[in-house]
Amino acid sequence: MAKVVTIEQRILKKNTEVAAENRRHFEEQGAYVVSLASSPGSGKTSLLEVALTELRKEVAVGVIEGDVQTDNDARRIEALGIPAVQVVTNGTCHLDAQMVQGALEHVPFDKVELLFIENVGNLVCPASYDLGEHLRIVVASVTEGEDKPLKYPAMFRRSHALVLNKIDLLPYLRYDMAAARAMALRVNSNLEIFETSCLTGQGVLEFCQWVLTQMAKTTAA
Amino acid sequence: MAKVVTIEQRILKKNTEVAAENRRHFEEQGAYVVSLASSPGSGKTSLLEVALTELRKEVAVGVIEGDVQTDNDARRIEALGIPAVQVVTNGTCHLDAQMVQGALEHVPFDKVELLFIENVGNLVCPASYDLGEHLRIVVASVTEGEDKPLKYPAMFRRSHALVLNKIDLLPYLRYDMAAARAMALRVNSNLEIFETSCLTGQGVLEFCQWVLTQMAKTTAA
Repeated sequence: MAKVVTIEQRILKKNTEVAAENRRHFEEQGAYVVSLASSPGSGKTSLLEVALTELRKEVAVGVIEGDVQTDNDARRIEALGIPAVQVVTNGTCHLDAQMVQGALEHVPFDKVELLFIENVGNLVCPASYDLGEHLRIVVASVTEGEDKPLKYPAMFRRSHALVLNKIDLLPYLRYDMAAARAMALRVNSNLEIFETSCLTGQGVLEFCQWVLTQMAKTTAA
Repeated sequence: MAKVVTIEQRILKKNTEVAAENRRHFEEQGAYVVSLASSPGSGKTSLLEVALTELRKEVAVGVIEGDVQTDNDARRIEALGIPAVQVVTNGTCHLDAQMVQGALEHVPFDKVELLFIENVGNLVCPASYDLGEHLRIVVASVTEGEDKPLKYPAMFRRSHALVLNKIDLLPYLRYDMAAARAMALRVNSNLEIFETSCLTGQGVLEFCQWVLTQMAKTTAA
């Protein structure tokens, strides 16, 4: 097993190097980059659909979509007239920095100031891979229960914000929002927490405003 | 990268060997073993809670719980007076046959005829690891959307049954059940599909009856 660990460490070291190259590329292109991770079906693409509709009023937006299979998500984003690049991992459980690097030549950076990267739906493996992004967001649907941060701590620990999505379903669930927030903050006390519904739009503007504020801070720095 | 693939193949080969040992052990003990996989928060543990309450009327039941962190799930099962062993993977994104083998000495097989193994919440990685189980079930919540089989095909391809859970929420969702079933069957035309709600109990008896029928077939063979 020692050898396997060494190989894993080598993969992660290589990933970190390529992530740094990505980050330099983003800075050269003047693009601010935000990643989204979550369980399958938490609503990352739906959140992008509603958030990008707002964000594009302020900045030029684009998306890199990561999926094990299908280009469904890129097609949903393109349907909004927003540039989207699909990365199909063909069985791999996460995006890595090299996959993102391979997608960058297809991103029209002359027309993209704010780039979102939507990861494969997986709360475990993507936590280990820096993609070169500036901001990391984890999405969790309220239908998944309150305890996901305790059960999958790495992802919540390395994220800057948590979006609790599908709050339109709260009246029909046994879900304790105060408990959910407390569990998330127990794992990462610096997490910004948003409550959103992509159906009603509730909370989406607040989330968008926060992303723009973070973007402005970095661009000014 | 060739070297990495070789190591991965070696890990999977070792896993297959240990899974065969597990299978022999289950047969010696006269236990029938069913695994559950799903996204985080699809309701695997809730399904176990309601299904085991029914199944225990017919057979002696037990559970091995897999989680990245916490023993929350084993405690929920134990609260029903059902023997449960928690495997904490400490960051690993799936159960493997060796982890299950390590848990077996804690399973009271003199009191367990039907053993469930609940995997880590992950629709990708667990698909590669045979645990030695007789029956593989994938759970998907209807809140996750219809297209999960297309996006995560390996898991649906290797499963014997799909449980579409949380159907009590259907009135509040834009979810096309016919489309969901068609997508699942496109990936695996042999899938048995059940629709369940752990809140109302709908569909749970039918699911339990099917598990018992599969168990009887194997035991008779």
